[in-house]
Amino acid sequence: MSTYIRIFGEIPGYPEGWAPPTGKRAELREAGIHAHNVAGISGTADEGADAIVLNGGYPDDDDRGLLIIYTGHGGQDSSTKKQIADQDLKDSGNAALVKSQLDSLPVRVIRGYKEKSPHAPAKGYRYDGLYRVVRHWFKTRNDGFRVCQFLMVKIDSPYDVPDPDYPDDIFTEDNSSASQVPVGPVRRTKTTVNKANRRATVVKEVKALHTNLCQVCGNTVELPSGPSSQAAHIQALGVPHNGPDVIENILCLCPNDHLRFDNGAFYLTDNLEVVNALDGKIGRPLRTHPEHKIGTEYVRYHRACWVKVP
Amino acid sequence: MSTYIRIFGEIPGYPEGWAPPTGKRAELREAGIHAHNVAGISGTADEGADAIVLNGGYPDDDDRGLLIIYTGHGGQDSSTKKQIADQDLKDSGNAALVKSQLDSLPVRVIRGYKEKSPHAPAKGYRYDGLYRVVRHWFKTRNDGFRVCQFLMVKIDSPYDVPDPDYPDDIFTEDNSSASQVPVGPVRRTKTTVNKANRRATVVKEVKALHTNLCQVCGNTVELPSGPSSQAAHIQALGVPHNGPDVIENILCLCPNDHLRFDNGAFYLTDNLEVVNALDGKIGRPLRTHPEHKIGTEYVRYHRACWVKVP
Repeated sequence: MSTYIRIFGEIPGYPEGWAPPTGKRAELREAGIHAHNVAGISGTADEGADAIVLNGGYPDDDDRGLLIIYTGHGGQDSSTKKQIADQDLKDSGNAALVKSQLDSLPVRVIRGYKEKSPHAPAKGYRYDGLYRVVRHWFKTRNDGFRVCQFLMVKIDSPYDVPDPDYPDDIFTEDNSSASQVPVGPVRRTKTTVNKANRRATVVKEVKALHTNLCQVCGNTVELPSGPSSQAAHIQALGVPHNGPDVIENILCLCPNDHLRFDNGAFYLTDNLEVVNALDGKIGRPLRTHPEHKIGTEYVRYHRACWVKVP
Repeated sequence: MSTYIRIFGEIPGYPEGWAPPTGKRAELREAGIHAHNVAGISGTADEGADAIVLNGGYPDDDDRGLLIIYTGHGGQDSSTKKQIADQDLKDSGNAALVKSQLDSLPVRVIRGYKEKSPHAPAKGYRYDGLYRVVRHWFKTRNDGFRVCQFLMVKIDSPYDVPDPDYPDDIFTEDNSSASQVPVGPVRRTKTTVNKANRRATVVKEVKALHTNLCQVCGNTVELPSGPSSQAAHIQALGVPHNGPDVIENILCLCPNDHLRFDNGAFYLTDNLEVVNALDGKIGRPLRTHPEHKIGTEYVRYHRACWVKVP
């Protein structure tokens, strides 16, 4: 078997829409598009993921075309394909996709004929372009097992926006039906007017109450323009979380703790203690303000994304 | 004069392309589009900027249509309009635009007939849609005075991308001629292939050499997927800085120090001391690695963006 050279981005000579002539996955590997013949994720924790295959391997996938909720790797019985264990981020494929998320690496998406999706090819495989990993989280399935999921959006599509927290309406417009996401451009400037204004107000309010001090570490990032902080949603905005854009669902955090919170490095108890998810230790309580009530339902939602028994 | 209610985003009833019938700025105010009759920036340091007018007030403006380099406010003699002093971020208009940058607020752009730009209307004013502030810096003019500049891109345009450091080719393709930026969509996925791959390699390299420890504070952001850091370009990528994507132009930073560095809260001396720009104090020296040479030319370029005598 030839050496696989991991390239990030499109492979010269294999444009979007390319399908292996014989319909075999080995051809994807030969072309340098995807490293493996069975595993869905091509990549390593160290390098990141360069490609994924959607081919019906995990029933929790939700393929909406330009937007994909992709299920991570692991926990299946190799012969029956039944879920028999939880997935985790120690799995090198899952860790690779997190790396691609954090480093904004482009991920090639290949759809196979077995994927139960209107966007899948009738036969064989098809390279469907470059996607970006927006975020990840854990979902508890009905059978109790936990799978890691990744929100991926096609690069250059209307879903590929600078601040994924900003245009939540393009994500939430269609929460009724998974397959109804329009494929054409979505005019974000028209639909987000009221939300942009409400967002500006709520963000200003939460930062003012905490005078830009991080509710976790108590520090502020001092810039020449003044002290700076970020408004972090507890139950994330947009598909599939659809958290509301209200102050009860927002924390005032520094960028470091924002990154940690959004990626499950810490979570909150109902009493607003800060728990380090890496060692389970309870740290300083969350800094609070009497006029800033935090919704327990949002805290529980976030916790369920990151710990099995919330 | 009626009260101006500051709204972020499009004003209902005043779509993109709308022009005041009498061609007067007072009508913009009446419509709630822009607060002032003379000043270019509508906004406050506390709330952010909701709108700007480009109307030839500052010769350093560079209007490329979907991408604008906008000059901040201040330092002009009120009668002669000659630059007689430096601009700074204490000016409430400039601070408002920084706030809009940090909070990703949409900014309405109005072009006036006096702007020397192929995109300006022949007469009167025209509302030209929502833009995002990507970054700001200081430019030293030929007369020695410093002006604050803001890179703004039209929301939903090909220039409006999640990671402004990522698709630098769409910014750098036309560094020869300011007015040649195409107005139609730019196919980023095709043009960025090689850069995406080179970026992945150089980012991986710098993070590995520093084992994800921030070169300023020495900390790493621990996530469930592993330690995390960011690759920060010293001379920024893209218009108008066009820094190269090489390891000599990159620092390994935590998100907090990345934010500080990109917004001029600290800079480096030629000896790689870390200087706090807010009080001028020299802190701990930059953490270095013998295999990670840092280019003095990039350090000097960054410094010139933030301090008058670098």
